[in-house]
Amino acid sequence: MTIYDISEKAGVSIATVSRVLNGSSSVSEKTKKKVLDVINRYEYTPNAFARGLGLNTMKTIGIICADSSDLYLAKAIYYIEQKLRANDYDSILCCTGYDLDAKAAAVNLLITKKVDGIILVGSNFIYEEDADNQYVVDAAAQVPLMLLNAALDAPNIYSIISDDFTSMYEATLQMISAGVRDIVYFYNSVSYSGKKKLAGYRAAMEEQKLSAESGLLQFYQGSHEDIPAMTRHLMKLHDQGLNFHGVIASDDTLALAAVKYAKLMGYSIPQDFSILGYNNSMLVNCCDPELTSIDNKLETLCQHLITTLMGVLDGNEMPKKTVFSGEIIHRGTTRN
Amino acid sequence: MTIYDISEKAGVSIATVSRVLNGSSSVSEKTKKKVLDVINRYEYTPNAFARGLGLNTMKTIGIICADSSDLYLAKAIYYIEQKLRANDYDSILCCTGYDLDAKAAAVNLLITKKVDGIILVGSNFIYEEDADNQYVVDAAAQVPLMLLNAALDAPNIYSIISDDFTSMYEATLQMISAGVRDIVYFYNSVSYSGKKKLAGYRAAMEEQKLSAESGLLQFYQGSHEDIPAMTRHLMKLHDQGLNFHGVIASDDTLALAAVKYAKLMGYSIPQDFSILGYNNSMLVNCCDPELTSIDNKLETLCQHLITTLMGVLDGNEMPKKTVFSGEIIHRGTTRN
Repeated sequence: MTIYDISEKAGVSIATVSRVLNGSSSVSEKTKKKVLDVINRYEYTPNAFARGLGLNTMKTIGIICADSSDLYLAKAIYYIEQKLRANDYDSILCCTGYDLDAKAAAVNLLITKKVDGIILVGSNFIYEEDADNQYVVDAAAQVPLMLLNAALDAPNIYSIISDDFTSMYEATLQMISAGVRDIVYFYNSVSYSGKKKLAGYRAAMEEQKLSAESGLLQFYQGSHEDIPAMTRHLMKLHDQGLNFHGVIASDDTLALAAVKYAKLMGYSIPQDFSILGYNNSMLVNCCDPELTSIDNKLETLCQHLITTLMGVLDGNEMPKKTVFSGEIIHRGTTRN
Repeated sequence: MTIYDISEKAGVSIATVSRVLNGSSSVSEKTKKKVLDVINRYEYTPNAFARGLGLNTMKTIGIICADSSDLYLAKAIYYIEQKLRANDYDSILCCTGYDLDAKAAAVNLLITKKVDGIILVGSNFIYEEDADNQYVVDAAAQVPLMLLNAALDAPNIYSIISDDFTSMYEATLQMISAGVRDIVYFYNSVSYSGKKKLAGYRAAMEEQKLSAESGLLQFYQGSHEDIPAMTRHLMKLHDQGLNFHGVIASDDTLALAAVKYAKLMGYSIPQDFSILGYNNSMLVNCCDPELTSIDNKLETLCQHLITTLMGVLDGNEMPKKTVFSGEIIHRGTTRN
């Protein structure tokens, strides 16, 4: 239903409908009521104007993530939902998998459910090619769109990101300066955030005149929770003749596999072998010794994301991109 | 919008609208089209009749869970969403926390979003008191309602459960017959499923004339992922003079804390100390030795739940309650 239909059904001009939607005071209460009655009766799809009037808003935010069984994404969803509830907003979540078409379909589904905003959780929603990001730009033409740990510069899109490049750069430098030079980079994602982490490792290795090539970059393709398969991946590297005494992992799960590998090899951790994880998840306490890991301040990111979204919905000017620093949490798997 | 409004707007009798909604063949195509046009135009809220005609169904299922950051619930959601997608259904998820009011609000929210069915994931949605379950009964009056690992006997409610009592009963008997007699039961939930597990442990202990009292039942109240806090809980038991050489845990996380406890105490696992976990999650591979755990066949449960729901939506008679057996997966933390 368009503004023209409303004007026709209410028996008033389009200009009058527009004035009502914009909250103008120059419309009589009687005319205003006539227009609002039509809008309410025919469930006019909310737009920014109608929402500003508190019309038809369900106070519901749509959340989309690729995979709720991923520890990091699950934790992000937990924080986001908690903070939305604290702001009297409901949330509905769609989990899409990693396929672009499914992501675009979920965005459209949430818009038909009349959400007031959409949050894309995790860095795998933004692609290299502009054409592949059109679904995000299109959605943002209808509702505010928030990106957690990804960035895209387009109207009505707000990005909250962790500085993964710097975190990984500094952690790699620390491991090198503790005397480890043959460090495998073990990763399982080439998302926006995945690329930044890899670039941080490379920058540190190159700065120290160490090769970040010759098989040290190890991409793991299997299930994100199959630690035995990850361990076999590292064991195979060794069988192929690669000598390495450190692992920097893009995720705590991969780092746990490195702990298992080191034990199978009979290395002492951290004397003979150093390991760094990422996300500072519950897994850091699961192994022995406990895992050094990068805390990327997920709760702070989520809090800031919700604050920004609430500001946008209130009609305030909010920052388009905010970057937070991570922190290395030292435990037993690295020498300091 | 009611059937009266449709009749008025379509210019046909209420009886005719009813015949169209019931799929009667005694209505002309022209009249049928007139009625359907009105229904489509004014977004008539779907009811069982309209859904049967494929009218206005969004092919969307609502899912509710208490906490998507719980490993077990997250995995269940993952399976359910995957299997819904395979059946060309979308899903939207609400995470409620453990508060009854929030659960009831989420059910209502999903119904306003016009879902075709609702799935309650996990056993904490069903309470002891009938009055506290009224929100579930009320929702089932509107859409089919599926319970994963909980049971409630009321119209339009379907329960898919794992036989947690028998799994825990058999696992406890096995640990006792391997020679461990002072077994702590370490748990963090008194949900439907939590009570069954506890009852299984007690039944086995009593059958073997062992006391299941005197401090052996240990309820942990803290964060479900704070393994250090769980470890301190066990250490405190020891400090209070309780002697125990086995832990049966209601969850793998609690079992991992028992592994840490045994190591801190200098016990050899499983020679001096036996540990059993529950859920057979990714955590079983995280510790050394790896964790013996009960696989409660979550994927099978989820598959059966979706098959049942699809049958119900197709108008078939489906079983109201289905029970699956679990299986003990032996690894390094128990003697066999």
